[in-house]
Amino acid sequence: MGDQTKQSETTIEEEVGRVVEQAKELQEAAASFISTSSREEKELRQRARSLDESIAKLRSSISSFTNSLDPRLVEKLEDELNRANCILVDGDASSFLPGKVESWFLKRFLGPINVRAIRKDVQLKVKEEYNSYKDRTAYLFLLFPSILLILRSWMWDGCMPAFPVQLYQAWLLFLYTGLALRENILRVNGSDIRPWWIYHHYCAMVMALVSLTWEIKGQPDCAQKQRGVKLFLQWAMMQGVAMLLQNRYQRQRLYTRIALGKAKRMDIVWGETAGEHGQLWLLCPILFILQGFEAYVGSLLLQTAFVGFVSEWQVVFCGFLLVLMAIGNFVNTVKTLLVKSRFKAKMKRTKSKQQLD
Amino acid sequence: MGDQTKQSETTIEEEVGRVVEQAKELQEAAASFISTSSREEKELRQRARSLDESIAKLRSSISSFTNSLDPRLVEKLEDELNRANCILVDGDASSFLPGKVESWFLKRFLGPINVRAIRKDVQLKVKEEYNSYKDRTAYLFLLFPSILLILRSWMWDGCMPAFPVQLYQAWLLFLYTGLALRENILRVNGSDIRPWWIYHHYCAMVMALVSLTWEIKGQPDCAQKQRGVKLFLQWAMMQGVAMLLQNRYQRQRLYTRIALGKAKRMDIVWGETAGEHGQLWLLCPILFILQGFEAYVGSLLLQTAFVGFVSEWQVVFCGFLLVLMAIGNFVNTVKTLLVKSRFKAKMKRTKSKQQLD
Repeated sequence: MGDQTKQSETTIEEEVGRVVEQAKELQEAAASFISTSSREEKELRQRARSLDESIAKLRSSISSFTNSLDPRLVEKLEDELNRANCILVDGDASSFLPGKVESWFLKRFLGPINVRAIRKDVQLKVKEEYNSYKDRTAYLFLLFPSILLILRSWMWDGCMPAFPVQLYQAWLLFLYTGLALRENILRVNGSDIRPWWIYHHYCAMVMALVSLTWEIKGQPDCAQKQRGVKLFLQWAMMQGVAMLLQNRYQRQRLYTRIALGKAKRMDIVWGETAGEHGQLWLLCPILFILQGFEAYVGSLLLQTAFVGFVSEWQVVFCGFLLVLMAIGNFVNTVKTLLVKSRFKAKMKRTKSKQQLD
Repeated sequence: MGDQTKQSETTIEEEVGRVVEQAKELQEAAASFISTSSREEKELRQRARSLDESIAKLRSSISSFTNSLDPRLVEKLEDELNRANCILVDGDASSFLPGKVESWFLKRFLGPINVRAIRKDVQLKVKEEYNSYKDRTAYLFLLFPSILLILRSWMWDGCMPAFPVQLYQAWLLFLYTGLALRENILRVNGSDIRPWWIYHHYCAMVMALVSLTWEIKGQPDCAQKQRGVKLFLQWAMMQGVAMLLQNRYQRQRLYTRIALGKAKRMDIVWGETAGEHGQLWLLCPILFILQGFEAYVGSLLLQTAFVGFVSEWQVVFCGFLLVLMAIGNFVNTVKTLLVKSRFKAKMKRTKSKQQLD
């Protein structure tokens, strides 16, 4: 018995000693990995930055020589530079380029934490998840206001109680905050999302917040007093439809991108915007109609406030915000279309030239 | 002239070629760095996990042998294991331990982005920034309600207008959301913050949201109707004072930790909670008074609602939440004190034993 105890004592002692040794080794390995990789990362950052600068410098010197150089050569050189830029911006090195975007919004909410993923596949996964999140919320966007409107005419005799509407407004606030945070994260990760769409979600956040303080009045004259809310819910339903369509379009673009990325990594940017114009011309009229309706709802709210049924500042403010958002949305949709059609024209020119050559 | 053009053509062509070459090289270097470092990271993760398991296994086998082993040996072995655990948990290797915390809150708001910092100094920086953020907000916490209360008696004749109060409530909502997000990030980064303090901020978020929908009524009987708001503001002021004191205490703890970390990295955990008990015994009574006041405000709100001056559900709900938060705060403060005094007793025992030896 004494021998056995002695033996197990020795075994356990040995094992404990081994574990302490392993812990020390692991600590050293981890420390050396962290220092080595941060050094290498720093070096890659420097190289990426200096390459970025060289490309910019060469671009400007080519454009200053344009008159004295052979136009064919200029085009060839510009193509080469574009290729180098693509490799830098769209490849693995892009993670080491200095972040162009400093997001005050993320800093306000999260503090100075780094949300930039180094690996390209992680970045794509984040984008993919963002799209599926938008998809899920688009259904809710359709569902919640529909339920409220249906209950309004079937159960509530045209007069909605305050609580479910406020619950919906709180959900909107949460949703828009989440979207704004995620979009800021995408931008930090190199997404080319137009800043306006993020501003748009800031406006929507403010509107949801303001609408929470907006007293939902009941009888008498409930239908008149709740006219603004009803219009807002109808607009939200249309928004849901538009979101579903938009998501479908963007998701297809991302899939194309991933598929191309697997086939031939660097040529993605050249091909990505081509080919889906059919879908875009279905999406655009719907978007324009929606924007018109948004402006209409906004002006009705303003009108309601000035005619005098409801005179709270919240109504004026929401009406003003809706008109502003409608205008911004319209301008930015048109801009996107212009960029796309310009790109398409250029692609055509390049193709016909290649055929001539 | 022709010669010069020719020359600059050649120079630019060469430079463009060089840039393209550099871009390709950088892409290769970046790709190889990313693949190498993710492989090494994976390996370190495996080693950390298996070491963690070995320590747990040895601990349980020592405790099952306790009766048959020499008690001195048992204590020595346990100390050794604690040392190994400290090296693992508090050193550089800790970043490679599987994250114990899955934060649904962060997932809801941010999506599947990784907010865990690998480098220890970055983690400490995040914590440091969190503390200074809390400091800044504590002043505002003191300032905003004071201004509202001063204006109430000086300018508004005891009847606050709705807008500034709602602005304050919106700020509270933003503040608590930010705090909850940051605390979740800290937890993911290995902070040992008690889950209750995060739940507490979730409750506060909900309360700020609910209070936004709470109509601020005016004349007649304004003083009676706004009694709840007034109590809430007074409580918020006291909260500001407590936050300032708490921050000061925690900040000192962190500084000690960083300073010790520089001197002798692994012994931090042993020393960190000792020595600041003087401060703690100043902080605790204030915390308990505050918690009592919180419960009192909550019960007054409930009373107001049931006596019938204000009968909205928001008042009942906020009253209930305040009482709940007061109880939770009390229980968790007591638990923290118990843990600390138990730790202190153990330290004393160890010290006196060392002196005996």
